[in-house]
This record gives sequence, structure tokens and C-alpha cells, in this order.
Amino acid sequence: MVQNADGQPVRIGVVGLGTIGSGVVRLLVDSADHIGRAAGRPIEVAAAVVRDAHKPRDLPLPAARISTDIRTVSRDPTITLAALLVGGLEPARSMMVELLEQGKDVVTANKALLAEHGPELFDLARRLGRSIAFEAAVAGGIPIVAAIGECLAANRIESIRGILNGTSNFILTRMEEDGSTYAEALAQAQARGYAEADPSMDVDGTDATQKLAILTHLAFGAWVPWKEIPRTGIDTVDIDLIRYAGELGYRIRLVALARRADGRLALRVAPALVRAGTPLAETRGAYNAVSIVGDAVGRMFFHGLGAGQMPTASAVVADIIDTVVGRAAITFRTTGVLSADTPTARLAGVDAMERHFLRILVTDRPGVLARITGILGDHGISIASVIQHDPIDAGGSAAGGRPGVPLVIMTHQARSSAVRAALDAIDASDVVHGRSACLGVLDE
Amino acid sequence: MVQNADGQPVRIGVVGLGTIGSGVVRLLVDSADHIGRAAGRPIEVAAAVVRDAHKPRDLPLPAARISTDIRTVSRDPTITLAALLVGGLEPARSMMVELLEQGKDVVTANKALLAEHGPELFDLARRLGRSIAFEAAVAGGIPIVAAIGECLAANRIESIRGILNGTSNFILTRMEEDGSTYAEALAQAQARGYAEADPSMDVDGTDATQKLAILTHLAFGAWVPWKEIPRTGIDTVDIDLIRYAGELGYRIRLVALARRADGRLALRVAPALVRAGTPLAETRGAYNAVSIVGDAVGRMFFHGLGAGQMPTASAVVADIIDTVVGRAAITFRTTGVLSADTPTARLAGVDAMERHFLRILVTDRPGVLARITGILGDHGISIASVIQHDPIDAGGSAAGGRPGVPLVIMTHQARSSAVRAALDAIDASDVVHGRSACLGVLDE
Repeated sequence: MVQNADGQPVRIGVVGLGTIGSGVVRLLVDSADHIGRAAGRPIEVAAAVVRDAHKPRDLPLPAARISTDIRTVSRDPTITLAALLVGGLEPARSMMVELLEQGKDVVTANKALLAEHGPELFDLARRLGRSIAFEAAVAGGIPIVAAIGECLAANRIESIRGILNGTSNFILTRMEEDGSTYAEALAQAQARGYAEADPSMDVDGTDATQKLAILTHLAFGAWVPWKEIPRTGIDTVDIDLIRYAGELGYRIRLVALARRADGRLALRVAPALVRAGTPLAETRGAYNAVSIVGDAVGRMFFHGLGAGQMPTASAVVADIIDTVVGRAAITFRTTGVLSADTPTARLAGVDAMERHFLRILVTDRPGVLARITGILGDHGISIASVIQHDPIDAGGSAAGGRPGVPLVIMTHQARSSAVRAALDAIDASDVVHGRSACLGVLDE
Repeated sequence: MVQNADGQPVRIGVVGLGTIGSGVVRLLVDSADHIGRAAGRPIEVAAAVVRDAHKPRDLPLPAARISTDIRTVSRDPTITLAALLVGGLEPARSMMVELLEQGKDVVTANKALLAEHGPELFDLARRLGRSIAFEAAVAGGIPIVAAIGECLAANRIESIRGILNGTSNFILTRMEEDGSTYAEALAQAQARGYAEADPSMDVDGTDATQKLAILTHLAFGAWVPWKEIPRTGIDTVDIDLIRYAGELGYRIRLVALARRADGRLALRVAPALVRAGTPLAETRGAYNAVSIVGDAVGRMFFHGLGAGQMPTASAVVADIIDTVVGRAAITFRTTGVLSADTPTARLAGVDAMERHFLRILVTDRPGVLARITGILGDHGISIASVIQHDPIDAGGSAAGGRPGVPLVIMTHQARSSAVRAALDAIDASDVVHGRSACLGVLDE
């Protein structure tokens, strides 16, 4: 905790002046009056650390305060708090250790670092009497970390459903609204600064999975190595799937799920069908959303910008204020999760009982439909609807002229293990082209 | 702040064992393990105060701990925290003063008390070094007080739109979905325990207005006597208005609004048209919703149960935990609003520039439409659409056989002062029956 001292400015360090770091510096300067009131004293960026000190920056920060040496922050005894705003694992991890060991409280937005090294870093901070605040690491501007850790503290959390990756959601929304192909939508996301030059962590579901691992710690008090969470990205979704789902009154969203299941936790990140008009389905563009069910509060829903410079900076600065006034230290001390002592979650299998949406590309000849539905029936899967679409013309399709006729099937409730087994048999048949698509349907 | 002490139970007092108080006692007992972990020590209800000690109660609380004397809580030096869960102004105000003066931190859900006496009570608490926490006073289980006061602290709040009264929203939703009349829907709300025997504070907008006054303090740092906020309740809404709005793609919701307008605040509570499919329109039943725009975070949306025993108890217990761990004291000290020094808000006039939805009951004879539209034109109001409905049959109408033919008009953007003036002229004409209805249209 930074001590209150007669309105003297709090001197903080900002490590990383990329998109988020620049936003934080700007917000601290542009809203200095407002933020100073909330913190009880002015907040001053005393030092910033970057990779390239010579890069031109249009920031309200004297060049003399910018260096490439973490020690300008960590070894300055007048700096008590550091915002660690670099991504990835290294050098972020070493920097966090150096900052904590030198007695700094840390605020960070780095979800990969926490999902990978959270327990040991949080333990280190506790041993050293320091705090780590990380509201910005999950769902950008949505205060979901505070909501779960503090506001819903009286609740046993039953389940979480979230749209946690703004880039993926932007791409899916563009495909759905404009009929853009996946590649076109991704290029738009990159042009608008939502997606990195290498967007693989966003579109393969890694980013959402790391965030889900952090939320799972907070909500269920259990530690999950993020790589153990079953994960499918949106790179498996094409424009035809979005269209066929739309015809049935559904949208496709990348949904992160966590729920209690017989003393275990069922977790997954995957594209799923959500009914148009429901809150998750109406979450568009770079917005994020989280729906939480608590035993006392019932269903709570949060919606806000999950990506972008200023929404994330808003969350980082809220954490800086919380740290300055001393709330972060209390929260960090009392919220006992994310330590190495936290039990590892016992994961339930991924065998969800739900409706499934299938797209199977078949050779258009008599008897094919009977054969496919026969295989499904053999696996105990009953069918709610089948639509045989016209053959895809090469121009309109994302995949550009996939062979075969698309058969779109909505099943009744079925075990996903049974559906997968049936699809394996179906895909092995000589009337099916390529691998069939299978998405879960999240009815409310 | 209650001191941490070796896992010794924190002894608290609960004043009022009505719906909310009973819920709090139940939650503290049923979720004792979970709540004790979050608070760092067990929480024990050491004493409860009620109006009638002989009333049978099915609560996990020994009868010996229940009395009618506030002093069993306030004068017990081992009790450091009281949950004040009685409604209305007196004796709630005197009880709050007694509790604070005897050194107790207070948690309350009483929005009327805060809207009426907030500044002096908060000043008293500050002078005495005590805290008052009041998350449960606004929007039930939705953590909107924490969101504005803490999580969005880095933001200059631009506007708030909220559905803050669960009873009103339940009634409007029932009318819309079942075609219930206002009286039938109110009876259902009473049967389900959402509405009091005397529902006037809910349906006349008082409750939502008091909550808006509290949110306005938090968001804009200004004090507004709630009675100065222009207020219209849902008792002005009939089933026909809901139907006609529905035909145009809108729903009617009781919306509390606050926004900055040229250095002043524009505030109001009134039924308004919101487009179907938007988050406020899809807020149904006893749910509440709040949409906030901050300069950094953009638009945030919160949705959850705003009424009912356990959602409200969830918020009260979160505040109890916050007080026990010491966060509430910090928040109360640093959030400088709600003191007698808080400037009184300068209210903007209610002259909103928006589209308006009018329902005028006219005599069905030639030239009437021309006369009405002529008066609107004379006031500079241009019309987007006019629908002349068939005369209302007595059976289907809430008002039961209102005379005249309903003319439903949607205007283009117009000053509400001009619309009101035009309607006064229209209502004075000899072809119009009764008073015309006029609702604002909240396009996004």
C-alpha cells in the first residue's frame, strides 16, 4: 500500500509504452484532476521503460523519463507502484519479479503471464507484502475481476459464460453482418488495431482460454493450467456456417464456458451457436460480455469494450487508484486464490449434453441422407431438423468451391462424445467430403 | 474498519428482519464457509432488531438474539457493524444516527433514507470515523455503486440510463407479453412479492428517482434533492400504448436518465420507448439494467436482478465483507461524494431533443387529422408516421372503452417543450378526448 501523505504526488512507473501503456499515460494526464481526486493525491508517471527509447512517441511525457532499463523504475525508491504493460511471457515475468523484489506494488494487463505463472508470482508478491492488481487482464473495461472477487463474494458461483476475445468477436460479427470472408474480416480487424500482425493467439482461442483460466481461479478458487482447457478457435468457422446458423435463428460466437459439474469443473472455449436476441448473441464487434450465475444473486450480465486502448487503460488506472488508496492490498490479501497452494481444478470431461449443429458436405446422390441419418441414429442421436442446401458456388463460399452438397443438421440434446463418434463414422464414409463441422448450441 | 483478529468471529447486528434482513441472515448461515473465507473470519449475527419480537420467524437465529430495542445492537461494544435493513425514513434515520454515534459501521439497503438524508448521515459517519456502505440501495444485485465509485473511477461519466425499479419493469413486461391490464399485472407483482401492498412508490417513479439521485451523486459528484428530478411513473401507461409502441418495433420501459448537458445535468425518470432488441428493451421481469458511458471505457452495460430477497442480500453481504476487511472504510473516505459540502447539481431543463410518441384520442370525423397535424406543424414539429387505429373496443382496453379513435403519431426529433405546447393546444381542441399521451423515444 502506498501511504497517504499530504497530497504529495504518488510517483509511479509505467513499463511498456505500447497501445495500453500509451493509453494509461494519456489518461493519467488528460484526467489528472479527476483521477487525483479519486486517489486522494496526484499520480505522476515518474519513469517509463520501453524496448526502443528512440522511437518517436506523441505522449505527454518528457523524453528524459523514458529509458530501456527496468531499474529506472524498480530501483527508484521514490516509486512505489509499477504498471507492467508489456505482453508475452518474457521479459514480462523477469520484470514482474524484479519489480516485486524491489518492493513495488504491480498493476498488470498481461493475461498470458498470469495464466502461465500466476501462482508463483502471486505467492512471491504475498511473501514480499506486495500486491498485484489485474482487472485489465480480463475483458478489458468490464470490471469482472472486481465483480467476482468482491461484489459477488457472498455467492457460490455456479457458471460463467463469456465472450472474452474482442478480435474474434469483431471478425465473427463482420462475417455475419457484411458477409465478409474470414480473411477479409481479419484484415479489417488488423486495420483497426484490434488484431495483432500475428493474430494467432486471438483466433485460435488461446487468449480467451487464458482469460477463462484466470476467471476460473477467481470464481471457483481452483487453479487450471490453461493448456488443459479444451480449446477451439474461430479459424474453424467459415461464412457458410454463419449463414446456416443464421437461417435457424442463431449466431456464432466464441464462447468461454465454466460450470460446476458433479464436484468437478467443466471448462471449454469454442465457437458455439447462441440464439439471436440473447445477450451473448447481441454482443457485437470488439465488445466483450460475461454472464455469471451466483447462487444468491442469480444471473448477472456485464457488457463492455473488451479491447482497445482507452477501455483497457480505464481498467489499468482503476487498479492504480485502488493500489494507491490501499484497497488493492486488502483485496490481494483476502482473495486467497492464485497462490501455489490453490488446489488444481478437477476437470470434468468435455462430454456436454446439448444440442449440436452439424455441417456435412456430401455427394449429391440417392440414399446419402438415409445413410447419414442412419449413422446418427445408430449412435442414439435424434435429429431436430435437416436442411439440404444447394451446392455451394465457388464465388460465395469462404472455402472457395468446396466440393459436395452441404447438409445442415440440428440434433436434439445429445452427448457430445456420441456426436463426435457418429461424425467420425460419417466422415469416414465415401459419400462425405472433408471433415464435418460440429458446434455446440447454447440454449438458455 | 473492523480489526482482523485471529479468525475470531465478527459479531454483527441486523436491524430489520423483513424480506431483505431475513435473506441476509439466511445467506450468512447457509454460505458461512464461503463468506468467512472472503471476509478472513467468520461472521456471526449476534443480535437482531425487529418491530414485533413475537412474530413467528423461520430463521436460523436463536429467539434470544432477537429484540425490539436498537440498543441491543448499538450499545453492545462487541458488535462493530450493523446492517440497517428497515425501509422508509423513520425510525430508520434515528437508528442510523444511534448506530453511528455508538461507533458502528453501517451497511444499508435503504435508498429513500440516503436520497433524503444522505449528505448529513454521510457527514456524521465521516466525523465519527465510521463508514456507510450501500451497494444494495441501487439496482439490487448489480454492483453498480462499486462500478461507478471504484471500477470506473478513471472515467468522466457522460451519461447513465437505467431500469432501476424491478416492480415497474415486471408490470410493464407482463402487460407486454401477456396482454395483462395494468391492474392485473400489478396484482401479479404483489402476489410474487415484488410489489408492496402499497405499491405507489414503485409505480409513481419515486423509488427509481431516489436511486437515480444516488447514482447521480456517485457519477457526477453533485447532490440532487430527488424531488427536483422530473418524474413520471408507469401508472400513466396503458395496454394500448404498449401495443401501439410494439407495432412500431418499440417497448415501453421506465427509464432513469442522467447526462451532462452544457455544464448542467439533465435528469429524468419517465416511461420511454426503447427499440426492441436493444439491451434496455430486452430487460424483462424483475431485472434491472444500467448503461453507463464513460469517456475512457465507452459504453458499459450491467444487467441483473434488481429486486427480490437473495439478490439484494447478496449485495448487502458483499458490503458486510467489504466493511469487515476494511475496503469499505477506504472507499468511504476516498469517494468524497455524498457529504454536505457536495455541490448541488445545476439541473438542465427537461427540454430534451428527441423523437416523441403521441397517442391522441380524437372524434372520428373528416378534417380532424388535418387539424391535429396542422397544430403540430405550427409548433415546428414534423411527423415521421401517423397511424389511425380502429376505435378501441371496451373489452380489450385497459381503460375500458375510452371514447374516440386513437391517433398514434411518431414525430421526428423535436424539443419536448414544443411537443408539450402543441399537445396542450391539441388537447384543448373540441375534437380531442381527454389528455393525450406523450413518451420520449430513446434511440441509441
